[in-house]
Amino acid sequence: MNTEKHIKTLLIKKPLKLDCGKIINNFPIAYETYGSLNEKKDNAILVFHALTGDQFVTGLNPVTNKDGWWSYAVGPNKSIDTNKYFVICSNVIGGCLGSFGPSHKDAETQKIFGINFPVITINDMVNAQYNLLEHFGIDKLFSIVGGSMGGMQVLQFISNFPDKAKTVIPIACTSSHSAQNIAFNELGRQAITADSNWNEGNYNLQNTIPNKGLAVARMAAHITYLSKKGLQEKFGRKLQEREDLKFGFDADFQIESYLRYQGSVFVDRFDANSYLYITRAMDYFDLAKQFNGNLSDAFKETKAKFFVISFTSDWLYPTQENKDIVIALNSIGANVGFVEIDSDKGHDSFLLDVPEFLSALKNFLDKSYTATK
Amino acid sequence: MNTEKHIKTLLIKKPLKLDCGKIINNFPIAYETYGSLNEKKDNAILVFHALTGDQFVTGLNPVTNKDGWWSYAVGPNKSIDTNKYFVICSNVIGGCLGSFGPSHKDAETQKIFGINFPVITINDMVNAQYNLLEHFGIDKLFSIVGGSMGGMQVLQFISNFPDKAKTVIPIACTSSHSAQNIAFNELGRQAITADSNWNEGNYNLQNTIPNKGLAVARMAAHITYLSKKGLQEKFGRKLQEREDLKFGFDADFQIESYLRYQGSVFVDRFDANSYLYITRAMDYFDLAKQFNGNLSDAFKETKAKFFVISFTSDWLYPTQENKDIVIALNSIGANVGFVEIDSDKGHDSFLLDVPEFLSALKNFLDKSYTATK
Repeated sequence: MNTEKHIKTLLIKKPLKLDCGKIINNFPIAYETYGSLNEKKDNAILVFHALTGDQFVTGLNPVTNKDGWWSYAVGPNKSIDTNKYFVICSNVIGGCLGSFGPSHKDAETQKIFGINFPVITINDMVNAQYNLLEHFGIDKLFSIVGGSMGGMQVLQFISNFPDKAKTVIPIACTSSHSAQNIAFNELGRQAITADSNWNEGNYNLQNTIPNKGLAVARMAAHITYLSKKGLQEKFGRKLQEREDLKFGFDADFQIESYLRYQGSVFVDRFDANSYLYITRAMDYFDLAKQFNGNLSDAFKETKAKFFVISFTSDWLYPTQENKDIVIALNSIGANVGFVEIDSDKGHDSFLLDVPEFLSALKNFLDKSYTATK
Repeated sequence: MNTEKHIKTLLIKKPLKLDCGKIINNFPIAYETYGSLNEKKDNAILVFHALTGDQFVTGLNPVTNKDGWWSYAVGPNKSIDTNKYFVICSNVIGGCLGSFGPSHKDAETQKIFGINFPVITINDMVNAQYNLLEHFGIDKLFSIVGGSMGGMQVLQFISNFPDKAKTVIPIACTSSHSAQNIAFNELGRQAITADSNWNEGNYNLQNTIPNKGLAVARMAAHITYLSKKGLQEKFGRKLQEREDLKFGFDADFQIESYLRYQGSVFVDRFDANSYLYITRAMDYFDLAKQFNGNLSDAFKETKAKFFVISFTSDWLYPTQENKDIVIALNSIGANVGFVEIDSDKGHDSFLLDVPEFLSALKNFLDKSYTATK
């Protein structure tokens, strides 16, 4: 990928102490913005991306030549209306689209980090991104929004910087990765490291890429993003361009072909080591643990208005785990709204054209924005 | 594995026409029996094993040196009481513990089949096993029983041989693999074939084994065998022999260590190509399709008494899919009982110490047996 010409970066000079104990400085954060920051600088929304997302939220992603990952939700007149708001999104550290990550060179050794990159956390990600506020001279964000791992970052951000956002929208997420969540991520990591091309993370040295392992990891994750019912309705047992079963191991069923496709396109845009690092950060996420097991304490310093959104068919971060966040907020009398959106599209609902979700998001933002005027 | 001395086989001389169109003959079926066949030969129960099971139902499995896979349910005074019943179980064709499978030699070429073995179906499996009845001179089985893929074989068997069993017990199964079921199996197959040691199925030629890919396939499947709640209760976020996170990629969490262990022990006892063939057979299973979409028609010729069992936390073959079998039976006025067992142990419940299940199974069998006397 010749991505560099498309990537805008901010060099962070200030040292950042990571949770692992290491200190990093002079590292890049790649970001994009959409819309315009108003004079009062009170219309900014920081969007956090999910595991395999990036800074290209909407419009054409110049690296993949596909639509940005949240084009349904972000853009002129959309839920996150770029005619009104100034949207900022940055690639997480540990990622592979310009922010400091395992495919970068270690300044000391001049070698590509690979798995010598420090293990990072959701906390490290949001601390790195906080620098964007200073860069733009924004004292307080109008909103912070994100789904899935983006939602985890939303929760961590408001916990770390309680007076830096007026509204807080965690979507389809959890305050702590469950054993099943960790299990699926570990499966993905094992698939990658099982690939002989992975070469202990040093695949860059031998010009090979663990594509097969990464594709398997993606397939595993992809199954968790969709609901059983959604899969059944979309694919069922439909055959792939054939009249009957072929009695072989080619893709007889459309669902097989679809999964193989998802795996194959993913490896063109994502780095295997980044996949290891980011899934690790998700597994390590346990916000209550940072507050001696009391999730409410994570939010007790903030006056922000929360809006928690879950989806009925999301079995990766089910409604109950989203409700647990609401319960923790209610128990300290925080300002919190909650909606469970009816959708068969599973965890991926937040990325898709789910009108009830998109209008709930738009209404909450626009009404909150008007109220602050 | 030096397994041969432990394996009892029946050589099937009669040609068997497979669903793929190929005809096989002079092929072995490996089997075990427990208990004694009575004089009237009316106390026989044919047990069908699941994907990774084998003929060693109970007691010591001489190949793995572990307990047989259904030791909780089968044995003296147990649910399937070997003091009373004569239990027969055979390794499915396509398997790797003695029955005709991809690790066998092709008689024509004298080469190991690998993926030149014919693709087999659940129908082929039960047709092969039918030969055991003739071998033992059994005109009618007292019961046919099996969970998961074993349950699919139960359904197919009674459909093919409607007057050959008095009672029929499909457990935690489905009459047709859903898109999500196929997706998980395809994931496993992709993990195996992604392993460079797989070598297009000819790993026997190069004395390598695709252990890493097979382990990943097993991990993926294993996650589906357990419930989210069961995983959370058993493992949650407990750490593996450490006080705190290590900020690396070793198994920090017990669930990671557990999955890795499940993968590693599996590869010692299972053949990667057999895994491909058996998962394929499961994916191809669609009993209603064999009857122009009418599942009831699969059972219209039998007078057998059915007992369908499902488990509340089984998300691989959820209660609804088991109920669909009951509905099909009810619609033709068949004799059918149904119970949904409350268990947090997921799909694996049928293999585990779930007292309510074990007593339901025992009661049904023993009362039905007494009634036939």
